[in-house]
Amino acid sequence: MSQTPLSAALIGMGTVGTGVARILLEHSERLARRAGRPILLRRVVVQNAGKPRDLSLPDGVLTDDLSRVLNDSEIDVVVQLIGGIEPARSIMRSLIDAGKDVITANKALLCEHGEELFNHAREQSRSISFEAAVAGGIPIIAVLGRSLAANQITSIEAILNGTSNFILTQMLGTGRPYGEVLRHAQELGYAEADPTMDVDGTDAAQKLVILTQLAFGTKVSLSGFARRGIADLELADLQYADELGYTVKLLAVSRLVGGSLEMHVQPTLVHRDRPLAKVDGAFNMLAMEGDCVGTTWFAGPGAGRMPTASAVIADLIDTATGRASRTFRRLDVWHEQPPIPIQPAEKIANRYYLRFNVLDRPHVFAEIADILGRCGISLASIIQHESPEPALRTADSKTDGTVVPVVVMTHRTSAGSLLAADQKLDALASLRPPRIRMPVAD
Amino acid sequence: MSQTPLSAALIGMGTVGTGVARILLEHSERLARRAGRPILLRRVVVQNAGKPRDLSLPDGVLTDDLSRVLNDSEIDVVVQLIGGIEPARSIMRSLIDAGKDVITANKALLCEHGEELFNHAREQSRSISFEAAVAGGIPIIAVLGRSLAANQITSIEAILNGTSNFILTQMLGTGRPYGEVLRHAQELGYAEADPTMDVDGTDAAQKLVILTQLAFGTKVSLSGFARRGIADLELADLQYADELGYTVKLLAVSRLVGGSLEMHVQPTLVHRDRPLAKVDGAFNMLAMEGDCVGTTWFAGPGAGRMPTASAVIADLIDTATGRASRTFRRLDVWHEQPPIPIQPAEKIANRYYLRFNVLDRPHVFAEIADILGRCGISLASIIQHESPEPALRTADSKTDGTVVPVVVMTHRTSAGSLLAADQKLDALASLRPPRIRMPVAD
Repeated sequence: MSQTPLSAALIGMGTVGTGVARILLEHSERLARRAGRPILLRRVVVQNAGKPRDLSLPDGVLTDDLSRVLNDSEIDVVVQLIGGIEPARSIMRSLIDAGKDVITANKALLCEHGEELFNHAREQSRSISFEAAVAGGIPIIAVLGRSLAANQITSIEAILNGTSNFILTQMLGTGRPYGEVLRHAQELGYAEADPTMDVDGTDAAQKLVILTQLAFGTKVSLSGFARRGIADLELADLQYADELGYTVKLLAVSRLVGGSLEMHVQPTLVHRDRPLAKVDGAFNMLAMEGDCVGTTWFAGPGAGRMPTASAVIADLIDTATGRASRTFRRLDVWHEQPPIPIQPAEKIANRYYLRFNVLDRPHVFAEIADILGRCGISLASIIQHESPEPALRTADSKTDGTVVPVVVMTHRTSAGSLLAADQKLDALASLRPPRIRMPVAD
Repeated sequence: MSQTPLSAALIGMGTVGTGVARILLEHSERLARRAGRPILLRRVVVQNAGKPRDLSLPDGVLTDDLSRVLNDSEIDVVVQLIGGIEPARSIMRSLIDAGKDVITANKALLCEHGEELFNHAREQSRSISFEAAVAGGIPIIAVLGRSLAANQITSIEAILNGTSNFILTQMLGTGRPYGEVLRHAQELGYAEADPTMDVDGTDAAQKLVILTQLAFGTKVSLSGFARRGIADLELADLQYADELGYTVKLLAVSRLVGGSLEMHVQPTLVHRDRPLAKVDGAFNMLAMEGDCVGTTWFAGPGAGRMPTASAVIADLIDTATGRASRTFRRLDVWHEQPPIPIQPAEKIANRYYLRFNVLDRPHVFAEIADILGRCGISLASIIQHESPEPALRTADSKTDGTVVPVVVMTHRTSAGSLLAADQKLDALASLRPPRIRMPVAD
């Protein structure tokens, strides 16, 4: 075994950083065997070196001075675990300028500035590894970048946000509404104090951008596709979907359709028989299609200290063996590739779940069906219960009538046709808000 | 892009070989981009160069003369797709001696002679890549060898034989017996004309040996653990399991329990809520636990021309980039590691599914329960239908009585206790063969 150690530094010692440091310290013999040489934790940079920590580091490792990493020529690789854009971006550039390979879990940064950072690293002959940036413990970056390299990936459908998936699972399982379940998730540590980025679809969309760059070799930006989170979902719709044989998932989709890329993040009805429908709780899952391999599925913990640390350590071992630089040079990501056009949202065809709140009067449903029919939207199934639960049966203040829900599953139609129908439906006096619409992934 | 091509040869052009050649010829530009250099198919060695082929190769590529590969110093890497032990083993040694890196899908050969071949390759500084040897299109070798390298793997539970899984799924789905479903699977191409190795558990056990070597770094042999196939399974037991909330799967298990390795391949009841229970048809799935990552799942096509070719091509690209040699040097497989003892079968503790065929007379069940109880086996649930289907209600030739099935789920017990109970049960006059026993994976 070659005995030249790999010297590593860590920037940031929060949840994931602590996990990484723990594995490096507690399993150094295991890692040395698998890396072919020892991996030394030489420096950990934090904002406040005096703060009490979960893990005690060897003397002299902890510092609040970044220059002790930048100016230390013995440090080969830096695990950069600061979130957000700045100062993470500047630090990453400085690390590359200082000749360090970089490992990061910062999906927001890669999503927004990946092209700049990757080009910078290529120019400086350094590598950026980012297994931990997407889907935590599921090694999806290695799978896309190396293991499925024979394939043209044609479709990615994924559950990429564990918080949202936990909340959706709990809502249906316990019959409790979004707000209550979110508070429960926060108590259990499955949702952060400010859960916005998780529940509004941003986190999943950032991860989808990275996966799409990697799988399709095309530049996409967060603003280039539709995203919707779970924060406005009502329990009733999860229950109707269940009744129809579907599970609602926050699905991130990127798929090639006739030379364009169909891309979105949104709550989607997934047929109960599909593996994606069966992923409960805080887990992530990806279903991917490639032109050679067919469909493969990958599932596991999408976040958390030790699963994410496991991904970071895999990158460290790849760096120690020399695989990381070889992989980085060849990744189809933020590279010169002909761009693939993104399909405009109104052209994307899907089956849809629609819920209308209607005044309980004769002929109301016929009016809706007529409008949908005239817009070319044909109906696959309809639920209108004779006696909806009291919670769904509400008095209408204007007419003193009763408002009842009508649920419709359409055949395949475009979002454009639905938009046209929406305008006509707006004119109906018998409809009450909200009108719910979710696509169906069969 | 460096323009020095990687020159490859293929030995064998059956199902997988044809797939590999097709990808190399049809997607050369894609592969060159991902490998950083062109991958040229320089030679394909077959037994009969005159036989009509699915795919036409460029002039001069096809040959029946192995020496045109061995003596061609321009060939860097050889994809060796001959099955069985000889001449595959001798050819592999000759290829290594001739300075070639080798890629193989031959699980039987690696299972039996992996240690010899890996040591030989290490001595000659060549690499052996074998992603295609286990689970077809699922990149499980890369996942174990690289992506989960931070972890001590603690458990592998896997469906590794697509033929068996297809047959089990069809039996339960159509209500038809084993023999009929096997013939159907043969017609569809899901089972070979001689399906022995698939349905007797040998194929899954060979794959489990390779995975166990890789995950636990310990030497195991095919004869060192229990294996049982699906050929003697009766439809009734699949149906009773279903009634109890379980699906019968041919499960390959390798798990660390108190410093020993528990290892077996056998039909197992898997609780319906577990992902492994939901893998239908010819797919494979692996559920793996690591001490850092927790549980991860990987599923996909476990066999077939293009999925397996996808795995071979990934190895070719890894060879072209230089990753393969770096990975091979560091694999915890057929390497100097302290061996882990295999848990003796009689000590392995499990819950069990038991079916007894009993004469329909008073007190018979009490006798069975008494024997089980005296052997320390406690019962979790019992099914004895008041009116079993006629097919299961058989006349007993000796007594003119009726034989009815009694199904029992036990609490956790050792195989040793069951063996002791078996001897006592043998003495009961009211039992008729067969007695069915399957472990339960909760």
